[in-house]
Amino acid sequence: MLIALLTDFGTRDYYVGAMKGVILGINPRATIVDITHEIEPQNIQSAAFVLRACYRDFPVGTIFLCVVDPGVGSKRRGIIVGSKDHYFVGPDNGLFGFVIDADCTICSIEIDDLFHKPVSSTFHGRDIFAPVAAHLSKGRVGLEFGPRITDPVVLPDVEPKQIGPEEFEARIIHIDRFGNLVTNITADRVTGAIELTVGTTRITAFRDHYEGGDPGVPFAIVGSAGFLEISVKAGSAAEALEAKVGMLVTIKFR
Amino acid sequence: MLIALLTDFGTRDYYVGAMKGVILGINPRATIVDITHEIEPQNIQSAAFVLRACYRDFPVGTIFLCVVDPGVGSKRRGIIVGSKDHYFVGPDNGLFGFVIDADCTICSIEIDDLFHKPVSSTFHGRDIFAPVAAHLSKGRVGLEFGPRITDPVVLPDVEPKQIGPEEFEARIIHIDRFGNLVTNITADRVTGAIELTVGTTRITAFRDHYEGGDPGVPFAIVGSAGFLEISVKAGSAAEALEAKVGMLVTIKFR
Amino acid sequence: MLIALLTDFGTRDYYVGAMKGVILGINPRATIVDITHEIEPQNIQSAAFVLRACYRDFPVGTIFLCVVDPGVGSKRRGIIVGSKDHYFVGPDNGLFGFVIDADCTICSIEIDDLFHKPVSSTFHGRDIFAPVAAHLSKGRVGLEFGPRITDPVVLPDVEPKQIGPEEFEARIIHIDRFGNLVTNITADRVTGAIELTVGTTRITAFRDHYEGGDPGVPFAIVGSAGFLEISVKAGSAAEALEAKVGMLVTIKFR
Repeated sequence: MLIALLTDFGTRDYYVGAMKGVILGINPRATIVDITHEIEPQNIQSAAFVLRACYRDFPVGTIFLCVVDPGVGSKRRGIIVGSKDHYFVGPDNGLFGFVIDADCTICSIEIDDLFHKPVSSTFHGRDIFAPVAAHLSKGRVGLEFGPRITDPVVLPDVEPKQIGPEEFEARIIHIDRFGNLVTNITADRVTGAIELTVGTTRITAFRDHYEGGDPGVPFAIVGSAGFLEISVKAGSAAEALEAKVGMLVTIKFR
Repeated sequence: MLIALLTDFGTRDYYVGAMKGVILGINPRATIVDITHEIEPQNIQSAAFVLRACYRDFPVGTIFLCVVDPGVGSKRRGIIVGSKDHYFVGPDNGLFGFVIDADCTICSIEIDDLFHKPVSSTFHGRDIFAPVAAHLSKGRVGLEFGPRITDPVVLPDVEPKQIGPEEFEARIIHIDRFGNLVTNITADRVTGAIELTVGTTRITAFRDHYEGGDPGVPFAIVGSAGFLEISVKAGSAAEALEAKVGMLVTIKFR
Repeated sequence: MLIALLTDFGTRDYYVGAMKGVILGINPRATIVDITHEIEPQNIQSAAFVLRACYRDFPVGTIFLCVVDPGVGSKRRGIIVGSKDHYFVGPDNGLFGFVIDADCTICSIEIDDLFHKPVSSTFHGRDIFAPVAAHLSKGRVGLEFGPRITDPVVLPDVEPKQIGPEEFEARIIHIDRFGNLVTNITADRVTGAIELTVGTTRITAFRDHYEGGDPGVPFAIVGSAGFLEISVKAGSAAEALEAKVGMLVTIKFR
């Protein structure tokens, strides 16, 4: 069974290794895949985006173990989200905000029989979430860890806001390695868009693919994750537009 | 079956995870190994060197899935290179320039039945190359994806150029984490060399191993990848010589 | 069988990939887990700490293949450390200083029959330690590679030093991604501590968990690795205290 990891732990410490050790101690037959551990520390929204961008590329039955957890050691809940095809395990802080829909079953993680003991107050990724994911991979189900809940924490500001008759305010939620700016504007909202503004830059070119176009001129394109992105051919849009995660993007429609 | 990945995707986005999800969806029994995802973005020559440096350390039957692909979405071909011992899958842009020899069979990837649908114009690593590699790992062969070709794109400037009776012009093609400068001078060309010049630095020490030598004095050594490298004991040659990838190295013979 | 890797090779070169290729060529059924490859180059103490921090989270039978090896190519020995539950393979330079105890059996690696040939003078990780680990994972034992030794190299300065009746001098041995400062003060030595000093900063707050506390005020806490750490709520203690690995920490007891 496949367990996919997504954290902000980085790769220079022992944190990810410890989680994998715990998983393989419980289920030596688990296949573990790293999505990334380079989420900006404690940036829940960025992690939520990355998860949304790739979870549908994983096989049915994949268990996503996601730990971006600024509230570790506090009263925040741990949850197991069961969708039609997948499990998602991690803190209840909005991390699963882009993948939870009305068909999901959500359980609060409360029964500690199967935790990695002693449970530290600083590393629930190793002590709680990794064991839960490993036991799910061996056939246990969400309800064995706690009761069903219906009020998961939701991500703030994930939807563009209407600010005029034909104008919306969106945000940059992720900047990838190539400097592409990913906005929170989903593909289904792009029809009829005629102009984007980021800072002082107006973008009026909307493309179907990267080919063609003028070097250095930013353009908008629906990226492989299903969100509208701003790119520059053979360059970095982040550098060209001096953009950062969180910056406003206004989008106008005809 | 073993699939080894080499890309310039970095590790902070979801790109590598998505490729692995697609592979394991097709072949849950595949073993996936990362060579690196930290190739300098779009640096085909650096990727070609890294592949050359390690592919012989992998077992017979390994499938190398390599994506450094500045031309994604354009008309550039995708190819499958079959050698006696391995498969190599990726864009036809010179990436396999150091591993293709006269005994290789090369197929153009054209038949799209087994692609990950819908095929994006921006992420062929996930949508084309990962599925092809996964299906090869299940026993399919190159010709099932398209016709044989004999004109793969070749890397420019991979061979040192003769510039005098006993003098050649080479280049730094890779700088490793320890600051060692890897040149495109292969081990078989080193016999009789008496002097290297990088920028304003002359190097006349040729060593068999790192032991001995004076701290701070650069020396030449055939590295574990089979190329002549320039090193500094207990230091970084890249810093000491202010060197960058692409810089000229002249080599003189007696 | 599980093989866990810990090196300072970084992830942008081919070094780690080559080691994995060699391992899987010998034992295709090995499960390989990365602890980290981002140890500061040649920092043996930092690697020793990271190993100590996580090895107990791995299942019984795990083989730890650890290569931080400034002396590669010199006369330094390679060793296999067998503990009750694990094997540790790597250079004899103090790397295993935190995991070796009186119950361990240590063998010097001398019999070269099973090495990866030809053995380079620059990359024993691939040519010696990876094959040894892979063969251990297939059932061979330490003594098949060389004789037992009883004088492994020990780490200098791993114990805090007494400098007054109730005062000890310790050091920062690791700084994690979140800026937490890990000291060489183990949990069993913390009882009765009343004050830490790092540079010009005095720390008198000792916590059981991260919750509560004032933003920006540094506090001491026993971290998940079993060492006393210095943290700042919602911030980086490394930045707040301008701390670096190796800095002195004085600890006073009542």
